[in-house]
Amino acid sequence: MSNEHHEREIGAVILAAGMGERLQDKRWPKPLARVAGMSLLERTGRTLRAAGLKGTMVVVVGHRGEEVVEFIRDRKLDVRVVENSEYLRGNATSVLAALPYVPERFVVAMVDHIYSPESVRSMLSCSGSFVAAIDTTPMYADPDEATRVRVRGGLVTDFGKGIEPYDALDTGLFLCSRSALEQIRTDTDGELTWNAFKRAWLESGREIHACDISGAPWIDVDSQQELKRAPEAILDWAASGSDGFVSRHLNRKLSRRITRVLLRTPITADQASVLSFLVASVSAGLLARGAWGTGGLLVQLSSVLDGCDGEVARARLQSSPRGAVFDATLDRWSDALMLSGMASGARSRPSTLAAYAALSGALLVPYTRAKMESEFGKMPPELTRFGATRDVRLAVLALGALLRQPTATLVALGIAGNLEVARRLWGLRHAGRFGESPMTE
Amino acid sequence: MSNEHHEREIGAVILAAGMGERLQDKRWPKPLARVAGMSLLERTGRTLRAAGLKGTMVVVVGHRGEEVVEFIRDRKLDVRVVENSEYLRGNATSVLAALPYVPERFVVAMVDHIYSPESVRSMLSCSGSFVAAIDTTPMYADPDEATRVRVRGGLVTDFGKGIEPYDALDTGLFLCSRSALEQIRTDTDGELTWNAFKRAWLESGREIHACDISGAPWIDVDSQQELKRAPEAILDWAASGSDGFVSRHLNRKLSRRITRVLLRTPITADQASVLSFLVASVSAGLLARGAWGTGGLLVQLSSVLDGCDGEVARARLQSSPRGAVFDATLDRWSDALMLSGMASGARSRPSTLAAYAALSGALLVPYTRAKMESEFGKMPPELTRFGATRDVRLAVLALGALLRQPTATLVALGIAGNLEVARRLWGLRHAGRFGESPMTE
Repeated sequence: MSNEHHEREIGAVILAAGMGERLQDKRWPKPLARVAGMSLLERTGRTLRAAGLKGTMVVVVGHRGEEVVEFIRDRKLDVRVVENSEYLRGNATSVLAALPYVPERFVVAMVDHIYSPESVRSMLSCSGSFVAAIDTTPMYADPDEATRVRVRGGLVTDFGKGIEPYDALDTGLFLCSRSALEQIRTDTDGELTWNAFKRAWLESGREIHACDISGAPWIDVDSQQELKRAPEAILDWAASGSDGFVSRHLNRKLSRRITRVLLRTPITADQASVLSFLVASVSAGLLARGAWGTGGLLVQLSSVLDGCDGEVARARLQSSPRGAVFDATLDRWSDALMLSGMASGARSRPSTLAAYAALSGALLVPYTRAKMESEFGKMPPELTRFGATRDVRLAVLALGALLRQPTATLVALGIAGNLEVARRLWGLRHAGRFGESPMTE
Repeated sequence: MSNEHHEREIGAVILAAGMGERLQDKRWPKPLARVAGMSLLERTGRTLRAAGLKGTMVVVVGHRGEEVVEFIRDRKLDVRVVENSEYLRGNATSVLAALPYVPERFVVAMVDHIYSPESVRSMLSCSGSFVAAIDTTPMYADPDEATRVRVRGGLVTDFGKGIEPYDALDTGLFLCSRSALEQIRTDTDGELTWNAFKRAWLESGREIHACDISGAPWIDVDSQQELKRAPEAILDWAASGSDGFVSRHLNRKLSRRITRVLLRTPITADQASVLSFLVASVSAGLLARGAWGTGGLLVQLSSVLDGCDGEVARARLQSSPRGAVFDATLDRWSDALMLSGMASGARSRPSTLAAYAALSGALLVPYTRAKMESEFGKMPPELTRFGATRDVRLAVLALGALLRQPTATLVALGIAGNLEVARRLWGLRHAGRFGESPMTE
């Protein structure tokens, strides 16, 4: 069983031997060029792992290989290195050099392309002994620079730069069977590019299956210009899909600028979470002293910063359940501090009672979600419609402070939060499929 | 695939045709005798479903069959009824009458035995075309009344009442293959008990596999005396395994008495949860008015009642994720109300600040658990050691009220709760396996 499982593990060959002429930089070989705070090599590896690849990953080095190998050793990257002295003959020599070390199914990825885990995952669901991931509606790649592909009946019939007409672009991402590739004879001492290899494959009567990954983002960073555009593309696809109204229209625009800066520093996603928490703590102290203006502004700043940790984590492919728990708990603590601060600043009995209600609501809304996810695997869909997400609640808090209306704000938040908890409990009554009694129909 | 799955579904025959002479009661036929608020028939069916049985369940009726059939129709029980006019010849005729309606693998269960889902589940993991569940250390059955079993090398070699020596008791629970049972010739017009059938099975050279379910509770309710003992046994095994110190030594002893009464009423587990919440609400009101004595007592009463919902649910085999969410959320609301009530009663600024902290702690301790369970599947084991479970926190709250020390109590609860949240966050740092970066070793 474990052996069978092992056999099915998918590995990868990361092509990192080329010179990358248009990306030439004296400071580092191309695989080590940094985009959004991370080398291209690390990003490719992390992306493949994030997409679910479990098997051996082989990095084939050539040009300035020693520097790449040293980097891999320094970072203790979990990859196998193959040195290809023939890399100048073309990148197919790198694939062939890696063949003895990969499992039967393996992905071929270019180190100078940035893929999203989604794009790799899409390809893994396609079958065939030679699968090429293609994109009919590329978001970032330039059709004049990239390899074009012609497709008929799900098969690649032709490819090359500048061919006309064409159906899609070659994404540089492939899924291959080692045993099938080993059968191709390539007895040549001349040029052996990956495109030439694919042509030999087709000429031998074999098929290349086109796997359409349109919609999943990827970018080719062949030039310095593309290298500069890449961080924006990565931030685009690192944006959270579950943003509330205030996040979408205000916070994200600001958090993205901050994240762009953070990605150039060694600051981790966890540290960004702590930063948001610290700003919330300071805002709570200011509110407690009646400094409504600065306090309110810092509440909103903390809300903006709360978007950065997720962006940093996703852009660096470091999202983890551990990070999610850490961030979520600090968020709850931040909420408790800010609400307590506001009530302390108001110094009235009604505001105290309202604060108890607001605190309970602010903590119980996420509690019911976490508890349902824990018990049901996910929140029942009919219970997820709730407009007052955290960004909205914090915006109300910030606005209430700026307008010097702490008591009314706390009352409003208390009512809204607890009503939502009640609505969820009530909704459970109808969530029959979760609670049906086991012996009745 | 779905057909294959269907083929593997395990069904059941519930033997409910016998007279149950020693359980004779004019008011109802034996399958409808009520134990802990539920008929023996419903309990058997629910137990089998709770153990994971998905296939058809056949109830074989005979003696006073019309009443049983009417009951099944009234309750809309999801079972198939087979009427066995020959039931007086012995209970094997009931098994044979049910054969055409069960899937290939099926459980044979006696309606006058009470099994725990655990006992059925244990048996399902055993293989063989005729499996008898046996118990070497029966907790409730009387070795002088039950069928004894002799076992050699995992096989039943002999059985019968009063045989000496013997190795275990027959639990009345079997797992059979329909096609194998159909091959046994039983051309007789005379007595055909299940024991006689098993003997014919052995005499035909076939094997009965002994499946040891020792440790999993079950009880045989052959007599009025055993019928009276049964609720206590059920409450024994309905006790929660995760009780805190106060629960174990105080609350459970009281909640069990209350549950015993509740089980005789139609009150559901959800309603018991609401009852505990209502008592908490009243206690909060009393604390807010400074009625420390009665308020404190009601806090503890609410804590005791909080044990009843789970006991009722488990005793009636109605535990569900939905019920767990409902109960847990009401518990959080109760905590918020009682802490707010105590702080309101104290009417001092320090008590207000302490209440904010205590409220945050009381809600965040369960939040971090739910969130970790949702993200990791379960709470990391190194983070689960926490003595201040809800029963302990409520006992401190009740005692603090009785001693008229609201502020000190809130301070203590606030510190303990938030320290525990901090400890969990800190512990996350070392929960490396949850957060390891995908490309490093």
